[in-house]
Amino acid sequence: MRVLGIDCGADRTGYGIIDSDGRAHRLIEAGVISSRGEEPWERRLLTLARGLRQVIATHHPETAAVEEVFVAANAQAALRLAQVRGAALLTLAEAGLPVGEYSPLEVKTSVTGYGRAEKRQVQRMVGSLLGLDRVPESEDASDALAVAICHATRLPVEVRP
Amino acid sequence: MRVLGIDCGADRTGYGIIDSDGRAHRLIEAGVISSRGEEPWERRLLTLARGLRQVIATHHPETAAVEEVFVAANAQAALRLAQVRGAALLTLAEAGLPVGEYSPLEVKTSVTGYGRAEKRQVQRMVGSLLGLDRVPESEDASDALAVAICHATRLPVEVRP
Repeated sequence: MRVLGIDCGADRTGYGIIDSDGRAHRLIEAGVISSRGEEPWERRLLTLARGLRQVIATHHPETAAVEEVFVAANAQAALRLAQVRGAALLTLAEAGLPVGEYSPLEVKTSVTGYGRAEKRQVQRMVGSLLGLDRVPESEDASDALAVAICHATRLPVEVRP
Repeated sequence: MRVLGIDCGADRTGYGIIDSDGRAHRLIEAGVISSRGEEPWERRLLTLARGLRQVIATHHPETAAVEEVFVAANAQAALRLAQVRGAALLTLAEAGLPVGEYSPLEVKTSVTGYGRAEKRQVQRMVGSLLGLDRVPESEDASDALAVAICHATRLPVEVRP
């Protein structure tokens, strides 16, 4: 099963593509779609959508996953993130991809076994689970891969290849 | 100048198209794109995007406007609304439309002269400003027309027809 994980951000959105049978995972590609500083705001959503479409057209994922958004300390930042998420979900729906949604807690637990794991720990485990020589350089790409791994391990067994 | 106003909602998104020279406004069309109860969530964003695209293809607006989103009493509702807004902004950007953004206070003040006007008051003034025999039946469509009127009155004079 080819899985696309997405880590939404107002300036940078990470993506990660893996092949997985639910237990073993293999990295296909990971990267970041940057729209930092683009104005007006909706232009960033367009850059993100176009970037995602290109990733989907290149790698043909069969399913996708994104993190849920919460209102934390900064409500305005959460609202911007939610808009990016809406644009990403629209792009995935348009591509006909089923979408899984997970809380940050679920993603961290799935990858590290610990819901309050630190960023660096998640990055290291992502590298280890994918059998990489070194951790992914970009934290956004690494987080997206964590979302993809979380999704892959929770897909029903019967849909695994 | 043909203006598209949008009132985003998780279940129902109102839209209103007017022709305006900044002072006099004429109703072209108003309505509601409903995605109430559609599952999964991203399916609603897709229904909204397709509906908006159809409105744009039919009426060829030159500019568009949406309300800003705030975190009010219900943070989860605000986050859902922000996702709808992100999907709407992406659709507008894709259509090449410039987008104005206004606070609810700005919209109400622009239409009724009073920032804390009640819903019913806004509806009546929208009907009056558009020279309608009666107020628009749908509150969502009426709110979208209010956003369009607000945008039309604030466009730079030099771009008015």
